[in-house]
Amino acid sequence: MEGRPSSSTTCKRISSKDTSSFEPRLTDALQPFWDSDVYKATEAACYFLMRHPDDEMMRIVEEAVDNIREAQHPDGYINSYYTVRGIKDRWTNLRDMHELYCIGHLIEACVAYETLTNSGRLLEPVMKVVHHIDSVFGSEPGKKRGYPGHQEIEIGLLRLYEFTKHPILLKVAEYFILERGKRDSKGEIYFDKEAWARGNDPADWDSFEMRPTYRMPRDYGYHQADRPLVETTELVGHSVRAMYFMTAATDLVRLTKNQGIESSLKKLWRDMVDKKMYITGGLGSVRQWEGFGHPYVLGDTEEGSVCYAETCATFGLTGWCQRMLRLHLNSEYADIMEIGLYNGFLGAVGLDGESFYYENPLRTFTGSPKERSRWFQVACCPPNVAKLLGNLGAFIFTMHGRYVAIHLYIGSVLEVPSSDAVVTVKTKAPWDWEVEITWTGTLSLALRIPGWAENYTVNGAMAGSHVKDGYLYLAERSDGRFKITFNPRPRFMYANTKVGKNEVCIMRGPLVYCIEDVDNDVDIDNVTLSEGLLQDGAQLRILDHEVTTVEARGRELKNADNSKLYDSRPWKRGEKKYLTFIPYYARANRGGNGGMRVWCFRD
Amino acid sequence: MEGRPSSSTTCKRISSKDTSSFEPRLTDALQPFWDSDVYKATEAACYFLMRHPDDEMMRIVEEAVDNIREAQHPDGYINSYYTVRGIKDRWTNLRDMHELYCIGHLIEACVAYETLTNSGRLLEPVMKVVHHIDSVFGSEPGKKRGYPGHQEIEIGLLRLYEFTKHPILLKVAEYFILERGKRDSKGEIYFDKEAWARGNDPADWDSFEMRPTYRMPRDYGYHQADRPLVETTELVGHSVRAMYFMTAATDLVRLTKNQGIESSLKKLWRDMVDKKMYITGGLGSVRQWEGFGHPYVLGDTEEGSVCYAETCATFGLTGWCQRMLRLHLNSEYADIMEIGLYNGFLGAVGLDGESFYYENPLRTFTGSPKERSRWFQVACCPPNVAKLLGNLGAFIFTMHGRYVAIHLYIGSVLEVPSSDAVVTVKTKAPWDWEVEITWTGTLSLALRIPGWAENYTVNGAMAGSHVKDGYLYLAERSDGRFKITFNPRPRFMYANTKVGKNEVCIMRGPLVYCIEDVDNDVDIDNVTLSEGLLQDGAQLRILDHEVTTVEARGRELKNADNSKLYDSRPWKRGEKKYLTFIPYYARANRGGNGGMRVWCFRD
Repeated sequence: MEGRPSSSTTCKRISSKDTSSFEPRLTDALQPFWDSDVYKATEAACYFLMRHPDDEMMRIVEEAVDNIREAQHPDGYINSYYTVRGIKDRWTNLRDMHELYCIGHLIEACVAYETLTNSGRLLEPVMKVVHHIDSVFGSEPGKKRGYPGHQEIEIGLLRLYEFTKHPILLKVAEYFILERGKRDSKGEIYFDKEAWARGNDPADWDSFEMRPTYRMPRDYGYHQADRPLVETTELVGHSVRAMYFMTAATDLVRLTKNQGIESSLKKLWRDMVDKKMYITGGLGSVRQWEGFGHPYVLGDTEEGSVCYAETCATFGLTGWCQRMLRLHLNSEYADIMEIGLYNGFLGAVGLDGESFYYENPLRTFTGSPKERSRWFQVACCPPNVAKLLGNLGAFIFTMHGRYVAIHLYIGSVLEVPSSDAVVTVKTKAPWDWEVEITWTGTLSLALRIPGWAENYTVNGAMAGSHVKDGYLYLAERSDGRFKITFNPRPRFMYANTKVGKNEVCIMRGPLVYCIEDVDNDVDIDNVTLSEGLLQDGAQLRILDHEVTTVEARGRELKNADNSKLYDSRPWKRGEKKYLTFIPYYARANRGGNGGMRVWCFRD
Repeated sequence: MEGRPSSSTTCKRISSKDTSSFEPRLTDALQPFWDSDVYKATEAACYFLMRHPDDEMMRIVEEAVDNIREAQHPDGYINSYYTVRGIKDRWTNLRDMHELYCIGHLIEACVAYETLTNSGRLLEPVMKVVHHIDSVFGSEPGKKRGYPGHQEIEIGLLRLYEFTKHPILLKVAEYFILERGKRDSKGEIYFDKEAWARGNDPADWDSFEMRPTYRMPRDYGYHQADRPLVETTELVGHSVRAMYFMTAATDLVRLTKNQGIESSLKKLWRDMVDKKMYITGGLGSVRQWEGFGHPYVLGDTEEGSVCYAETCATFGLTGWCQRMLRLHLNSEYADIMEIGLYNGFLGAVGLDGESFYYENPLRTFTGSPKERSRWFQVACCPPNVAKLLGNLGAFIFTMHGRYVAIHLYIGSVLEVPSSDAVVTVKTKAPWDWEVEITWTGTLSLALRIPGWAENYTVNGAMAGSHVKDGYLYLAERSDGRFKITFNPRPRFMYANTKVGKNEVCIMRGPLVYCIEDVDNDVDIDNVTLSEGLLQDGAQLRILDHEVTTVEARGRELKNADNSKLYDSRPWKRGEKKYLTFIPYYARANRGGNGGMRVWCFRD
């Protein structure tokens, strides 16, 4: 989604009876996906309430549930936009109108709310709308063979299926995932057919609402609907849609053993990780369609309308990684999840905890500071931040048979499901990577060995342990304790030659570092780094937050003639000096002139 | 303009009486700027007819003039779109609808046609429409204070002014140039006011036609109308509009000595040449608004929607250079004109002479060949190619008082205006840069010394010559002959550090060279060049055209692990080998796998 900051939002309770009288100005501003903001905030609130009971927040959640129940139509349909704009037009434009997307977020909110309350108050309307959807869409005769323009409902359906085991949830999700992108004998997909049914030519570019995001008429790759998933080998189009789709499809594979889809997912994973991902876990190198571009073409700056790297896309990436981990316990998925979490995702939030980026470029220019916003008119990102942070435990730990897998080393306590065991993780990571793990009760553990850790040391009983696919497996034992220590030494990273970057980037553990003009008395546009000379620098306090800096040795470059854009004389190099790098996520929290870069020239 | 290839065009003669009955399908496809194609083709035809009389082409030109005369309304107005769509809406949307732009091309066609025929048949309707425009627009009370959304008419008016000296032409041009971007007490410009007059909110984004090209509502920098020219210090927005504006404003300065505008033009020239121009003379680093981006951000590839480098923008650049030369005889203007002409412009045409590029990126990828098209639905580029090639003499020579200035060394014959002198230039440039200049009659010469020529030798009488601002001045003499020789040795070029390119590009004389996969048995994505080792290579025949290649020594780079996008291990380097480079303009004429790049890594 395309976001623009907005200074205020307007609230109004919407009932299913409100089909006629609506204030024109509000109607004009109404977005078809605004319901999702309520659902996502409700979901996030439920996660926090599970750990931190709060009467006022609980009251707001219950009021939201009341509103949702009241807004539902007798047949189960629920969507404020069509309720207000005219219910007769519902389900006529799945491509653009986000009805199924919103309901997907409602279903995810239901999982969180029912986990918290077990009241059934959200499950009831949710099952009602799912039955309604099943009555309208599906492969049975007489039903529309539609699927959402923006994937999301597939995730919700499968999450609720795992919660309730109601077969209709799996059925509808599987239908949406497998039907997507199928073509008829004329080569048309559902979005063509529904356009004709509305009286529109789907290829009519001049009257085409999606024109700003499509490369050409009927550019259904934008929605990952240009072909069925089972025939797809490259990630294209809108990154958030793609990540939500991959997340759900991975759950489908785990639940149904669909080998064709699994084979596609493996290819798409490789396509993303090996060709289309920023080193920060950012996704989307093209602003126009907020999505994937050409393999290896990964521009660093928003100027020029590249490097979109939307917060929601990295949020989606972490979800896909977590699902891939549940399917196959392989540390590569956790490595990428960790990179996305600590860099592309975490840096989207200001250290004040109340400001957000929509886009997360890898370079900003001195003189053009990029400020975080407090809200967006299209506000998909901030509630996704709340959702992920509220549900972080599901990313730290997953269950694999009798094994508790620990993917992320973050201070935490896990009460193991269906067990009396309690695991406690203590660590000062991502600064000091000594991790203390203790547990009571009986437990089998699988500990991730990060790909960035060249080696590790264990202090404690490791008898009977073995490593497989990047996880250290410890056989069942009771009331244990040990320490595992990883070395996060700062290192230079190189991009594949095809990226065209004759540059280096600094990482320390999973953290990507950047140079900001506020710390360095050099022109950071003109810095070249000397390889091999990297070390931890001083601790630095940014707002109330302390980070470990990295020191590199580098030089300023000088043009033979600084005023010339092109010159037949090569650059000159200045004296070597120490330069300070900070974690990318902590950027842009201290004013300065706005200059920041992740990649720098190398000597 | 945004172009998409079209397989056919439909022609229909339009009379000023045709205001009601029109075939719906043609109406739907009607573009508001299509008149300009007829005018531009007429102008180009007249240039060629001046040197190569051709009865059939002359008949077509006269028929076009008949059509133009018939299409004009009694009050002087002329525009097919509004004639067909409804004349009552004329002059209500200068921002988008190109009425003045089209008339600008009509006026330029008039200059060419009347130079050829001196019949007055086009001058009559042109003066009539100019008087009509003057009656509608201007700073006098009761007139609309409008100006074109796409500049062009300013060029035509000033060219015709120099041809006829009719003061109304200068008056209207000066008004359009100086009025542009002025704001009222509410901060609104004319495009706001005309939107309100149409009943539209100019800031209403959702209903906004320009949305795909604007960054934000009321993004008038796109039209260079965000502020008056005299207050402008940076080139922004649509590159073609900007170049046409600069061209006309430079003529205005020469004709009226407006020092404020001259000061702005000098700043804008430096902004373009020092910060925003591709090494090929390509302009426009951002596809979204087909225009200028952030200083020094100059992505090389169309993938990612950067590097637009529209053919018309470089066409416009050569026009601005030529006007700057007429204002001040300084070889920097001719150096840039030559670079634009031989690289960004010339390469837009296939060596078959019948195929064209709209965009001219500096890198294309192996596996994705970029083919030239035979025509475009928005066909601004091909007739501009014909215009420039037809009028090339005006770029080779200009008059400066009694001096004939020679800017470009291209085989040619000049009959000096208002003189009996005839100058002949013979040369095999751009391959061999020995230039033989002979003349009959009495002549004073100013010869450009190219900025790329480190030195030059002269064979012949040079008594009394001196060099100033990159021109070699020869005092008046009769019936002379001499040779001047420049050394076009191949050289590496470096981009300013701020561009972020740790790469080199090869030039030879004014020609930018590129590497194509069709000539080289290496993966050109992974080539690194060894500095200092460059030499002329073999002659190469491409279609019926022979070029001098350049040989460089380079190596293939290898990733430590080719499958990884990012790696802590640096690249390895292969064995040195010779690599073949060809002129950029000759690219993509021989099939191959489509891989081409101008900039390569350096060792």
